[in-house]
Amino acid sequence: MSLKKLTIFDTTLRDGEQGEGISFTVKDKLKITQLLDTLGVHYIEGGWPGSNPKAVDYFKGVQELSLTHAKVAAFGSTRRAGKTVETDLSIQALIHAETPVVVIFGKSWDFHVTHALKIELPENLALIADSVRYLKANNKEVFYDAEHFFDGFKHNPKYALETLSAAQSEGADILCLCDTNGGCLPSEIYDMVTAIKKAFPKTTIGIHTHNDAGMAVANSIAAVDAGATHIQGTLNGYGERCGNANLSTLIPTLVLKMGIDCIPKDKLVHLASVSHRLDEIANVTHNHFLPYVGKSAFAHKGGVHVSAILKHPETYEHVNPELVGNSQRVLISELSGLSNLIHKTKEMGIDIDPKNEKLKTALDEIKSKEHAGYQYEEAEASLELLLRRILFDQKSVFDLISYKVVNAQRDSETCEIESILKLKLGAHVAHIAADGNGPVSALDHALRKALLPHFPEIDSVRLVDYKVRVLNSKDGTNAKVKVLIECKDHEHIWGTIGVSENIIEASWLALADCYEYKLLVLDPSKK
Amino acid sequence: MSLKKLTIFDTTLRDGEQGEGISFTVKDKLKITQLLDTLGVHYIEGGWPGSNPKAVDYFKGVQELSLTHAKVAAFGSTRRAGKTVETDLSIQALIHAETPVVVIFGKSWDFHVTHALKIELPENLALIADSVRYLKANNKEVFYDAEHFFDGFKHNPKYALETLSAAQSEGADILCLCDTNGGCLPSEIYDMVTAIKKAFPKTTIGIHTHNDAGMAVANSIAAVDAGATHIQGTLNGYGERCGNANLSTLIPTLVLKMGIDCIPKDKLVHLASVSHRLDEIANVTHNHFLPYVGKSAFAHKGGVHVSAILKHPETYEHVNPELVGNSQRVLISELSGLSNLIHKTKEMGIDIDPKNEKLKTALDEIKSKEHAGYQYEEAEASLELLLRRILFDQKSVFDLISYKVVNAQRDSETCEIESILKLKLGAHVAHIAADGNGPVSALDHALRKALLPHFPEIDSVRLVDYKVRVLNSKDGTNAKVKVLIECKDHEHIWGTIGVSENIIEASWLALADCYEYKLLVLDPSKK
Repeated sequence: MSLKKLTIFDTTLRDGEQGEGISFTVKDKLKITQLLDTLGVHYIEGGWPGSNPKAVDYFKGVQELSLTHAKVAAFGSTRRAGKTVETDLSIQALIHAETPVVVIFGKSWDFHVTHALKIELPENLALIADSVRYLKANNKEVFYDAEHFFDGFKHNPKYALETLSAAQSEGADILCLCDTNGGCLPSEIYDMVTAIKKAFPKTTIGIHTHNDAGMAVANSIAAVDAGATHIQGTLNGYGERCGNANLSTLIPTLVLKMGIDCIPKDKLVHLASVSHRLDEIANVTHNHFLPYVGKSAFAHKGGVHVSAILKHPETYEHVNPELVGNSQRVLISELSGLSNLIHKTKEMGIDIDPKNEKLKTALDEIKSKEHAGYQYEEAEASLELLLRRILFDQKSVFDLISYKVVNAQRDSETCEIESILKLKLGAHVAHIAADGNGPVSALDHALRKALLPHFPEIDSVRLVDYKVRVLNSKDGTNAKVKVLIECKDHEHIWGTIGVSENIIEASWLALADCYEYKLLVLDPSKK
Repeated sequence: MSLKKLTIFDTTLRDGEQGEGISFTVKDKLKITQLLDTLGVHYIEGGWPGSNPKAVDYFKGVQELSLTHAKVAAFGSTRRAGKTVETDLSIQALIHAETPVVVIFGKSWDFHVTHALKIELPENLALIADSVRYLKANNKEVFYDAEHFFDGFKHNPKYALETLSAAQSEGADILCLCDTNGGCLPSEIYDMVTAIKKAFPKTTIGIHTHNDAGMAVANSIAAVDAGATHIQGTLNGYGERCGNANLSTLIPTLVLKMGIDCIPKDKLVHLASVSHRLDEIANVTHNHFLPYVGKSAFAHKGGVHVSAILKHPETYEHVNPELVGNSQRVLISELSGLSNLIHKTKEMGIDIDPKNEKLKTALDEIKSKEHAGYQYEEAEASLELLLRRILFDQKSVFDLISYKVVNAQRDSETCEIESILKLKLGAHVAHIAADGNGPVSALDHALRKALLPHFPEIDSVRLVDYKVRVLNSKDGTNAKVKVLIECKDHEHIWGTIGVSENIIEASWLALADCYEYKLLVLDPSKK
């Protein structure tokens, strides 16, 4: 394949926010803009100033950012019927957004013109032409989004082409073809983009796809194969219904597999971390199974696979995970054998003879814990504590005698939460009371108070993540829950797990492991 | 496109279980087998009896099921070097599984033969030929899985073809080409399958893809376009790393868009419910954004979209959701305007003049609640209670005076959890104590005890789902949590939400709404 050049247009902040459960504050949007700039995308679509007051604030705020690479774009529709470009508020909002780039969408599908806009077909051509002409006259780089282009082209190819001509003849810089309903297949997209490229050989053709048939990425690639050189998508695939084309999948495929010049290779190594940070900002659960950037994308579980990749990673890895900032992982599970466990002990720096019989005991214990709902894939600190207890009879630093948590709520205002913790620390017994915002924070505060006088090093420990997962949710409030806690100090990040029918007990188990791991594994010299 | 016929082979129970976080009990596997049979798939791969004792139990158990449609297949590898087919335990395990169909995988990529198996290239051909011949002689339907076929064919096409010939000349019923590392692109797959179909014009060619480049579904379709008539995949796309080709996406595309005869149309309406039940059995969170079957797949949020689909669904829906057992949803969110809210009140059967000014107050209240972390998309019962309070000054059935929950844990064994609840019910004050497995179930028990004497109809209410989501997880145990509860009675299912920094308080809010909704909305006559 020849080395082509194409531009990446991210619409996470506009089309992405149409996804269920996605909502950004202006501050979020500015943070994401900076993140996307780090990655080296060419354009960032910030919002629709004509429809959303938040977008107006964003376009003000974004002028304070100094972006190194990306140009910011504002989105809107062609002028309304019955308005002129001067009296159409949406068009005027585009001008006031003061972005170098403006995207306007118009109708390509005759059915939408007559049934949604309820105007005659020629009038729609005038809306498009007038809007593009006016924005070009205002010195904007203008991208024309042909909404429902492919469905329109299937139904009435002549009219669909006329809508593109209306935009192109007024100087639109890009004609972007949209599969708005996301129902097309790659072979169709290839044929239609080929036809459009033939009709407009000198105009840059863009592609904007949705994932309703699971084809958003494949359709974008098919369009590139047919001559498109501008791709619109969202990082992590956020978007209306099933989402937009996922740029975190598309970009590495373009760069690493197709040799296309779009994102510099030295920026590509940020891809996984940018993808994860975006999920964090959006406050949605990271999809572990995402190509390239997902936590599971290079995670090997099958015994056959594990023994092979340890010798030759290319046997079961399609690309080197480091190129996209991800890494290889070996999973310990019920399906995995001793060889995975031995590999894991090596990863952890645990020095043990692979023939030691206690490894078998440890594997059995792991399997029985997993049967009870434990899962160590995200809680390797708890796994390591378990292994050290079994393999080396490692003793705990502290042992629980008892705890009590009292949560007293009076009407919806006043709430008092107290914990009382009794802990054995060697020869000493600590008996501590503390309060908190909730039962778990009250326990955490008591545990810290108990440990600090003896182990000042735990002062640097911070809980950075707390996750709760109901295991057998059909049992309602009697369900078993799994709590995952992530901690950090100045140098390390580690994860622990607790499982119980009682959420407080599950949280306690994970909390206790957090501090045990800090004291036994990270700072062992002091014990 | 011509009306082709092809067979669907589901490997959820074998390759699917290689996915991170996926683990089935034998009972789970039998349940899933029955589910897949309901859907009308042709083959169900049950496991690898030579590598996993659970698979052996499964193959015993599955003989008790009476399947109406699907044939069960056992999976294994070609005989090992140094073993004969009679002495190879894995091959013998395939015979003992007593399934009508056997799948064996062998190496197609010369690099794997010399570097993973560490044998000469011709010896690998003998392993393949011997294994197929032996299984055919034992009256099995034999599918040959050519592992890493496409990568092998790219590196050494002559040798890759020889491995297929070795299987085909001994009578393999299907040659299934595997993109084991999941890194191929659709155009490559199309070209290679075309070449193979030319070399083996009379043999059924199968396709088995992985999703490491986000192309598993597109690659399967490309193979079908090139002549493959057997598709291997997993329902919901479970599988090693990024997963296998997702059959819940592939099947409706084949049937509804390509007119291919594979699953009867009257079975297709079960697709969404089978997909959701599989997630429940596997105990993994349903991916809302899955094409066709996801909860968001036909969910409309943008104001422009909503007003259009209410008139003409085809304007923003690529297929009719009812064909796959899904349904259209209109979302209420910060981005949505009054028109979405008015549509929602109609859906709920709330009779209100669209011009009533209180609707604006309600929309503002919803937006401010969403700002605080509430999300009503999965908790429409809480939304309806909120709307009724604002629009009609609806009073609650009960009001909280106070509650207290005491959770006392002694060592790891003994735990005592008690709740004390004080509730105003009209003129009456109930003061109730109860215990439970955890703080939330203790509160639930107290609330039921308080309500039952006055409202015996709540006896039929069951909590069927309880989910906890941490909203700002970076704040550790001080994080705000969102609790979602799903309830049912004999006729209805409804969902409620509570948000607080204290998980007990968040659970209380959701619990209270559950019973309020039953009493105020479902059984209002009695109030």
